Amino acid sequence: MKMVKVIGSVTTTIKDKSLEGFKLLFVQSVDVDLKEKKEYFVAVDTVGLGEDEIALMVTGSTAKRTDITKGKNVDGSLVAKVERIDLE
Amino acid sequence: MKMVKVIGSVTTTIKDKSLEGFKLLFVQSVDVDLKEKKEYFVAVDTVGLGEDEIALMVTGSTAKRTDITKGKNVDGSLVAKVERIDLE
Amino acid sequence: MKMVKVIGSVTTTIKDKSLEGFKLLFVQSVDVDLKEKKEYFVAVDTVGLGEDEIALMVTGSTAKRTDITKGKNVDGSLVAKVERIDLE
Amino acid sequence: MKMVKVIGSVTTTIKDKSLEGFKLLFVQSVDVDLKEKKEYFVAVDTVGLGEDEIALMVTGSTAKRTDITKGKNVDGSLVAKVERIDLE
Amino acid sequence: MKMVKVIGSVTTTIKDKSLEGFKLLFVQSVDVDLKEKKEYFVAVDTVGLGEDEIALMVTGSTAKRTDITKGKNVDGSLVAKVERIDLE
Repeated sequence: MKMVKVIGSVTTTIKDKSLEGFKLLFVQSVDVDLKEKKEYFVAVDTVGLGEDEIALMVTGSTAKRTDITKGKNVDGSLVAKVERIDLE
Repeated sequence: MKMVKVIGSVTTTIKDKSLEGFKLLFVQSVDVDLKEKKEYFVAVDTVGLGEDEIALMVTGSTAKRTDITKGKNVDGSLVAKVERIDLE
Repeated sequence: MKMVKVIGSVTTTIKDKSLEGFKLLFVQSVDVDLKEKKEYFVAVDTVGLGEDEIALMVTGSTAKRTDITKGKNVDGSLVAKVERIDLE
Repeated sequence: MKMVKVIGSVTTTIKDKSLEGFKLLFVQSVDVDLKEKKEYFVAVDTVGLGEDEIALMVTGSTAKRTDITKGKNVDGSLVAKVERIDLE
Repeated sequence: MKMVKVIGSVTTTIKDKSLEGFKLLFVQSVDVDLKEKKEYFVAVDTVGLGEDEIALMVTGSTAKRTDITKGKNVDGSLVAKVERIDLE
């Protein structure tokens, strides 16, 4: 999973009908120290995230296996909210 | 999903027969501020996009799951037109 | 799909038996202006390409869905010859 | 497989229910000489790894085929502990 | 497929049981002129390769479709030995 930060949301108009009703978030990859990297994705929010929160994103076929994205044409889903990182 | 900008179209001659009839667009990845990155793809237009429009692209197996690309040998499809990005 | 240029061919000896009989081309990613990038792949030619021609390559599971690569252990196939790029 | 080093662990709160109970490790890609690269992933530990250990990570659909991740919505799993690397 | 060079082997101890018995090679991506790139992978040897040999590697789901990796949790397999590259 990739660790990402929620930096915004995306509104789409004309779209594949399987995407209707999804909350699409704009996310940015973050480093171990939460420093932002120049990698951006648009992903479906499956857990209810707020701005600046850190999340885990799954990509590829895994993204369409959550309860709310099943059978949908998405390739990025946010599946967990990161609460704490413990470095060793 | 990747956010991309439509910058042109591609005409192919000899091709896999499953690709016949598709409108293939040349797209470029864009940053959060819509600045163009040096990443290019050729993707099937499934929603009717015009020049300079911003779209969401799905890749891999997801690309062949839209109504018009079902069972076709494509690995990049444009599935939504981006209307607005709200940064938090 | 990735846009690539045919720059050579590859001869293999010992190989997975599902790869026997394939014409393997050495290809290089190209930019929108056909400038070569430092990304190389070896892909199966499914459409009959010649040297310096520009092609569309599919990767991953899509690569083994063309008529000639069905069920074969390949992850890169050239599926179309690019005739023209129209930039907008 | 990618060779990675365990550098920490990740605690998640709200999450996809298929992720419950997993030990999620924060890992970093390493070079042939075990020098750390600036690539980070969060992966499920399927073999019992400790801090600073070197592991092999599978990604994509392979990640959800181990005995403990079967049918789970994960796209990165640690499947082996690296004991020794012999360079030729 | 990616063209890679065999630079070593990897010994693992604790591991997913589907990985038992495999010869895992440490490989490095090479350029068209066989110059080494800073990209490393660990892959299953399915054809019997020796040190410094050049091979074709398949990744993702394709990696677990060879006769010896069928149903195994691997995402990188070496499927051919490269004998000759002809540049045009």
